[in-house]
Amino acid sequence: MNELTINLQPKSGVPLYEQIYCHIKKEIQEGRIASGEKLPSTRSLCRYLEVSRSTVELAYEQLLSEGYVEAKPCRGYFAAEIEGMYRLGQEEKTETGELKKPKEVYSYDFTPNGVDLKSFPYNTWRKLSKESLVDDRAELFRMGDSQGEYGLRRAISHYLYQARGVNCTPEQIIVGAGNDYLLLLLTTIIGQEHKVALENPTYKQAYRLFKSFSYEVYTVDMDEKGMEVTKLEESGADIAFVMPSHQYPLGIVMPIKRRMELLKWADREAGRYIIEDDYDSEFRYKGKPIPSLKGYDSHEKVIYMGTFSKSIAPAIRISYMVLPRPLLKQYWEKSSFLNSTVSKVDQLVLQRFMEEGYYERHLNKTRALYKSRHDTLLACLKSFQSKCRISGENAGVHLLLHFPKGMTEEELIQKAKTRGVKVYGLSEYYVEPEEEHAATILLGYANMSEEKIEEAVEILKQAWEIS
Amino acid sequence: MNELTINLQPKSGVPLYEQIYCHIKKEIQEGRIASGEKLPSTRSLCRYLEVSRSTVELAYEQLLSEGYVEAKPCRGYFAAEIEGMYRLGQEEKTETGELKKPKEVYSYDFTPNGVDLKSFPYNTWRKLSKESLVDDRAELFRMGDSQGEYGLRRAISHYLYQARGVNCTPEQIIVGAGNDYLLLLLTTIIGQEHKVALENPTYKQAYRLFKSFSYEVYTVDMDEKGMEVTKLEESGADIAFVMPSHQYPLGIVMPIKRRMELLKWADREAGRYIIEDDYDSEFRYKGKPIPSLKGYDSHEKVIYMGTFSKSIAPAIRISYMVLPRPLLKQYWEKSSFLNSTVSKVDQLVLQRFMEEGYYERHLNKTRALYKSRHDTLLACLKSFQSKCRISGENAGVHLLLHFPKGMTEEELIQKAKTRGVKVYGLSEYYVEPEEEHAATILLGYANMSEEKIEEAVEILKQAWEIS
Repeated sequence: MNELTINLQPKSGVPLYEQIYCHIKKEIQEGRIASGEKLPSTRSLCRYLEVSRSTVELAYEQLLSEGYVEAKPCRGYFAAEIEGMYRLGQEEKTETGELKKPKEVYSYDFTPNGVDLKSFPYNTWRKLSKESLVDDRAELFRMGDSQGEYGLRRAISHYLYQARGVNCTPEQIIVGAGNDYLLLLLTTIIGQEHKVALENPTYKQAYRLFKSFSYEVYTVDMDEKGMEVTKLEESGADIAFVMPSHQYPLGIVMPIKRRMELLKWADREAGRYIIEDDYDSEFRYKGKPIPSLKGYDSHEKVIYMGTFSKSIAPAIRISYMVLPRPLLKQYWEKSSFLNSTVSKVDQLVLQRFMEEGYYERHLNKTRALYKSRHDTLLACLKSFQSKCRISGENAGVHLLLHFPKGMTEEELIQKAKTRGVKVYGLSEYYVEPEEEHAATILLGYANMSEEKIEEAVEILKQAWEIS
Repeated sequence: MNELTINLQPKSGVPLYEQIYCHIKKEIQEGRIASGEKLPSTRSLCRYLEVSRSTVELAYEQLLSEGYVEAKPCRGYFAAEIEGMYRLGQEEKTETGELKKPKEVYSYDFTPNGVDLKSFPYNTWRKLSKESLVDDRAELFRMGDSQGEYGLRRAISHYLYQARGVNCTPEQIIVGAGNDYLLLLLTTIIGQEHKVALENPTYKQAYRLFKSFSYEVYTVDMDEKGMEVTKLEESGADIAFVMPSHQYPLGIVMPIKRRMELLKWADREAGRYIIEDDYDSEFRYKGKPIPSLKGYDSHEKVIYMGTFSKSIAPAIRISYMVLPRPLLKQYWEKSSFLNSTVSKVDQLVLQRFMEEGYYERHLNKTRALYKSRHDTLLACLKSFQSKCRISGENAGVHLLLHFPKGMTEEELIQKAKTRGVKVYGLSEYYVEPEEEHAATILLGYANMSEEKIEEAVEILKQAWEIS
């Protein structure tokens, strides 16, 4: 083939080489140039089409690199044989809108996972972001330390020492984008051969996560002091996932004796570990914060996890994990090649937020805010005590109402719902063979003003016929 | 016990309740108050110490909640029995500096993983960050969509359609903090029972990652068109990880015929999938970008992965994955409970960066920059062609020099090193039973000015005795 009639349109805005390329590609795709057929030489085609030779060459190069034509030395260009060409048929680009689930509308929502975002220090955060983006430009956008930036880890280790009684070095800390990610990472460190025990009821996210990795997962019942260690021993688990500072959802603060028993359990066999999820230890309304379990961990048995999602904002995807030294070694060997999941800019902003005293101020501010909401809610609930017992009131951002008789959880929730108040049942936190428990309602108050709390409790009172 | 002598210091700045709490705690810890011993009542102790009753109550509450004392109804407070108290001995907080590996110092570094950070649009990024932090405040700090924000996913789907020929909906896209994370996530979606084949040589990070999940991992040799499909078939793998647009490290652009063969391989058995890592498809110097393999994927067999680490900056921890519809269903069922790893603020900034045309401009700018570096490097290397063959020159940000005889890779690297130039050997990308290959050096140019390139090549010329 020496000629190839192409209807070139110099004024179309599409480069000539591209018009040639597209034409030939289409001819090959649609079989009008058969596979194996020789194409015109660049020299003859450029003469024929009255374009420059380099234009044709560029078109041929593109065809070559996409595999539509093949070059045979000293012989020229040939249409390639293209298997399964039908695949190229592109569907029309279809645009679909976001499939939104219809949202339920409530006037009041006692979610136990709320965070007050009005108190988020936007101005400070914006200022620090802006300053961080100016300083030290290029360095900030290079790939960072896979463990997290050293400066942030140092700030976290100071915080942990002062606020949580944890004595660890920055080398033991791994920063990651959320607790879920850190648990995923942990599975790469400890490997697959483990039996994990969680409290029952528990934080279901962790339960599902361990399950999704085909770990053997058990739940261990709790008494009023937390996970029962004899039952833990019976379960045969080698990893215990607990929330000693403030169990979710029960709000239990594990007493020191139980903590010691847990540590002893871990000590009894090599390879046993405790994962301590210290998710909302920042909020405690009576006395000083209780030291974390990790604070007593002199035998390197506790994997400590903390997050800024609760204490700053859920969208700040920064959590951290403190590894016992034996696991740290495994991390370095097996998993430290995995790149960090948190942007360096965000890490620097958070580091400065901590180092320059903003975090402390923010914690004190939100603690006071939550305390007054907590006190308001407790005061409003006074008349409820004829019908239910209240627990979980010393820490965290939710209370529990236990109704020993009368309505079921489902009824309580439904009656509130019809009046526009969303409340949460304890049952959904039980993982498996659900233990008998009194109908129990969780009331979270972090994201509700005192006025709203008063209004909502008044509605609940009517809904549940409390006099 | 009715008395408890505590040397209170009202002027010390430490609250009185805390002094009482600390004193009693220490007494119990050190055995001076035996376990089971009754403590003074709050009433008698406040009289004795001449403080308010609420001060003592606060101290006792703290001791109670930390488990040092127990309250027995109608009988009073008793020191708790504390198992293993020795654990409480805190080590002195030891401060250690960061353990820095001594860094090797080079005047010139031809890293194939470089990104030019001078061209990063700092002002735009800062402006968008600032604006994002003002608008719509609280909403931005709530927990976001676990798949990634819809707006960003829509922007990515537009980009993929226009630039990469991928026809997908935002519903198919999952945004995550880096490719490593997305591969981790993918393992939770597809489960553990898979045999994964990678190209050899390949991107080692992916290899290690699959290995760390106890997948069976194979490497499949490549010819000049990419992974050999017959060998892939022989390997028994059901998942193939490939880089068709620009193989790393060999720089091969997979021709359309091979792509079709790969897709046919995937079609032959249910459950087979291809992971297409399109990591630096943005940089191509001749003709139009080649459509991605996913663009031809009419049978839902290709898992597409893309990243902004190469095209914007490594520290921007945002990558994305396009799931075929059958896997999307599995994701929703099994893994969508895992929270997003990218902050909403960053997602919004990136979305606006794409929607408002900044991304396109940035890509064109860096493409031109890399092209001129690429051309300069090729021109400087002209005299090298007597000793070596050059490949990988059409795309990406590195070239390969193949030395069929003469020095070994190690010698080439060492001779460059002694003169302050860092170059990279191909051998380190081979995963297992290393195939015989000519000594091959990778020269990355993304992060080197043209002036530096000229200087460094001149040094290499001397080092390698090229005339």
